[in-house]
Amino acid sequence: MIGVFDSGVGGLSVVKHLMNRFNSDIIYLGDTARLPYGTKSKDTIVKYSIQNAEFLISKDIDAIVVACNTASSFAIDELREKYDIPIFGVVEPAAKRAAEFDNICVIGTQATISSNAYLKKIRKYNNNCKIEQRACPLFVPLVESGWIDNEITYMTAKRYLFDINCGVLILGCTHYPLLKDVIRKVIPKIELIDSGEALAESLDEYKDVFQGSGSLECYTTDSKEKFAELGKMFLGKKFNGVRLTDLN
Amino acid sequence: MIGVFDSGVGGLSVVKHLMNRFNSDIIYLGDTARLPYGTKSKDTIVKYSIQNAEFLISKDIDAIVVACNTASSFAIDELREKYDIPIFGVVEPAAKRAAEFDNICVIGTQATISSNAYLKKIRKYNNNCKIEQRACPLFVPLVESGWIDNEITYMTAKRYLFDINCGVLILGCTHYPLLKDVIRKVIPKIELIDSGEALAESLDEYKDVFQGSGSLECYTTDSKEKFAELGKMFLGKKFNGVRLTDLN
Repeated sequence: MIGVFDSGVGGLSVVKHLMNRFNSDIIYLGDTARLPYGTKSKDTIVKYSIQNAEFLISKDIDAIVVACNTASSFAIDELREKYDIPIFGVVEPAAKRAAEFDNICVIGTQATISSNAYLKKIRKYNNNCKIEQRACPLFVPLVESGWIDNEITYMTAKRYLFDINCGVLILGCTHYPLLKDVIRKVIPKIELIDSGEALAESLDEYKDVFQGSGSLECYTTDSKEKFAELGKMFLGKKFNGVRLTDLN
Repeated sequence: MIGVFDSGVGGLSVVKHLMNRFNSDIIYLGDTARLPYGTKSKDTIVKYSIQNAEFLISKDIDAIVVACNTASSFAIDELREKYDIPIFGVVEPAAKRAAEFDNICVIGTQATISSNAYLKKIRKYNNNCKIEQRACPLFVPLVESGWIDNEITYMTAKRYLFDINCGVLILGCTHYPLLKDVIRKVIPKIELIDSGEALAESLDEYKDVFQGSGSLECYTTDSKEKFAELGKMFLGKKFNGVRLTDLN
């Protein structure tokens, strides 16, 4: 059983990739009562991440996937130090794949970008590439408003990205893959890396842990109805049986 | 001493009006670690509001001002039932003032609008007026991005409000007064009600409680630096001495 957590529903896009590749059995926790993490400080993000991990570990899981880029950026080291089970984040696999390019751009939340987590991980694999980073704070509320491909979302993407001149763009937030089309309209000739997809593709050596029968059990810290409604946008299909839990 | 709480820094616009009118002595709590409240459920908002009130009451205050429209909409009755000190919200005074009009529109967060709090309060004073309500979920992230008066904010306001045909518009969120200019560009001939201003003007009969020497002590549940930085936009001036506190 794999435990996956995110600040909200966005991590279900990571679940989708794990399901597609491994048919994993997943217990998912979306901390919707305290989302977003991307505007908050390191201390707060680490605290919430530990509470999320504690909850998942109490469910007797074999590994944790931190499906939130912001939590992966700030809390992965703390989590690995604290717990003995394998812990996987979404930053490292995307950084490793991007490091094959010479000219890289990373977009993410304010917190993810200010952490420099992608920058440091890319540097591990490629010391000579050019790396640019940009926070795109309005992308998450635009997606959560369902404004996936309208004029306002396009203009916002244009304002954030119009002058990007790189070979590859890391979509460093689980919400951003939903904006792929609008991002491609602004910068057509660019490789896009989906951090959840990159993570799933990096896990073949842990096949024994991740392979399963495709069960999904979801917990949320706020409204079950809203979680189910928004969640299907990220999971790509409907699901039932969301349960409420309380972390504080 | 007056205790004021909000989900973040927006309530400082209410503090500004209390200071201008009464020179109040204020202890302010911004629950920035868990903001926003406007996208969350009633149960979560009530829980957070009670934790905020407990914190303020531990500081030996004489009254509480709920400076957040969402918390005022969902939690004011629960708070009044639970605590003996006077508790004031931002919904009722704005509703009372709007009720002098025949054709009223209320804008707010998703949670504030779905609560129907404004609708019910206006009906207390005017049973015959027409009332329209609209959620404007992107206004808060736009303001917090500092996009107060750009083309994207204007287009967003237009999309939300272009067909409004009312005598008065209640700005049912403490962030919205910062968008007054852009809202006026979309709907020029409309009376705007600032809920914080309406609250301050309704408190003359409690002058003895609210009059003070203008001291302000701020607590935040997340980054002190970010609170101070964003806060001056709402308070209209710089301030020092933000302290960190932990509610959970």
